[in-house]
Amino acid sequence: MTLTLYTAATPNGYKVSVALEEMALAYDVVKIDLTAGEQKLPKFLALSPNGRVPALVDDGFPIFESGAILLHLAEKTGLFMPSDPHGRSRVVQWLMFQMGGIGPMMGQANVFYRYFPEKIPAAIARFQGEVRRLFAVLDGQLARHEYLAGDYSIADMANWCWVRTAKWSGVETDGLPNLQRWKAAIAERPAVQRGITVPEPAKVKSEDEEDLRKIAERARPFLEMGRREA
Amino acid sequence: MTLTLYTAATPNGYKVSVALEEMALAYDVVKIDLTAGEQKLPKFLALSPNGRVPALVDDGFPIFESGAILLHLAEKTGLFMPSDPHGRSRVVQWLMFQMGGIGPMMGQANVFYRYFPEKIPAAIARFQGEVRRLFAVLDGQLARHEYLAGDYSIADMANWCWVRTAKWSGVETDGLPNLQRWKAAIAERPAVQRGITVPEPAKVKSEDEEDLRKIAERARPFLEMGRREA
Repeated sequence: MTLTLYTAATPNGYKVSVALEEMALAYDVVKIDLTAGEQKLPKFLALSPNGRVPALVDDGFPIFESGAILLHLAEKTGLFMPSDPHGRSRVVQWLMFQMGGIGPMMGQANVFYRYFPEKIPAAIARFQGEVRRLFAVLDGQLARHEYLAGDYSIADMANWCWVRTAKWSGVETDGLPNLQRWKAAIAERPAVQRGITVPEPAKVKSEDEEDLRKIAERARPFLEMGRREA
Repeated sequence: MTLTLYTAATPNGYKVSVALEEMALAYDVVKIDLTAGEQKLPKFLALSPNGRVPALVDDGFPIFESGAILLHLAEKTGLFMPSDPHGRSRVVQWLMFQMGGIGPMMGQANVFYRYFPEKIPAAIARFQGEVRRLFAVLDGQLARHEYLAGDYSIADMANWCWVRTAKWSGVETDGLPNLQRWKAAIAERPAVQRGITVPEPAKVKSEDEEDLRKIAERARPFLEMGRREA
């Protein structure tokens, strides 16, 4: 079995490197240079037709969409996913919540807060407000459960890799104690700590508002990327 | 076995009613009145903690997130989803593409094109452009395959229920012949035709730009809903 991960230092990329580390799987890493547009080259599109990282190739079988990769790995290993149908469905539900909610809404918050050439307060407020609302949904679930879907699972990995970047989206987690408790607990896991260095740690950038224009200009070519990541 | 679908006339709702019809499953329907805010009432939040339609209750087991419901139904019936791991993963990949891409981006295109109190041309252009880009990804896949992931599957149902509303998002499918062929073929299926009448057909609303303000005002209370649907 050979696993090759094509990835970059983004939340969706880290979701997969964290899972691979948690599952103690051996894998090769190919770094995709987003600023050079490598994710739009034909050889990468052959693996990931949407031109987004990450992609995983498992013994010649390519998989795109980070949520699909996590499900594939969980099913392959039998790890971080219950085997009974209800337990399994609970994990899928919170994974889908991340794929359809947390990910796209934090991505759009980042676009309008950080990258968009025009500063549009109503759009920034809309997405930051929606992210905060989704955080409260997580907090509510975590008030009743230690992890999102029972035991620690791929659903936690998926959501955590985005929630940890809350500050980059300009959204606070104050007043959401269960979310904070969960966020801190997962950050302590050695496999998670390794996963978020693949292919490299995310660069810490200044959050000074005066830098926004410069960031926006640098990011302009990538605006069409949709869910632009931290 | 009893199945109860809590739904409204939205693309995500239709995804599940189409699947239930395709699978020839018996189910009860509870209509959730979105304009009355029923999706935010405690009794609905107990089923769907994000306060969104649809939710499905299967013999007392509640499931939220339309993508998770589709996977549950496909696994339960063994229908519209291959049983081999690669075939299955291909379906999951294109389902995730809909959950993380087509759905949220069309939802945001609708918000800014139709519902947002302020008309922001840059935001409208951004989301309509992203939707068109995602349509081209579907078209590319459908140039090589009759359906998105081999045989007709839950991935087709999920994407189709959004793509059919392209006009409502102000996005054309001109120049995407494979997407058009696929869209027309699925529209011919009797089960699909039944599914998109549950709990009722979507209202055809005027697309006159002059109505935008009125629509926006009516929709204002729901702006926090994020992926506001057609």
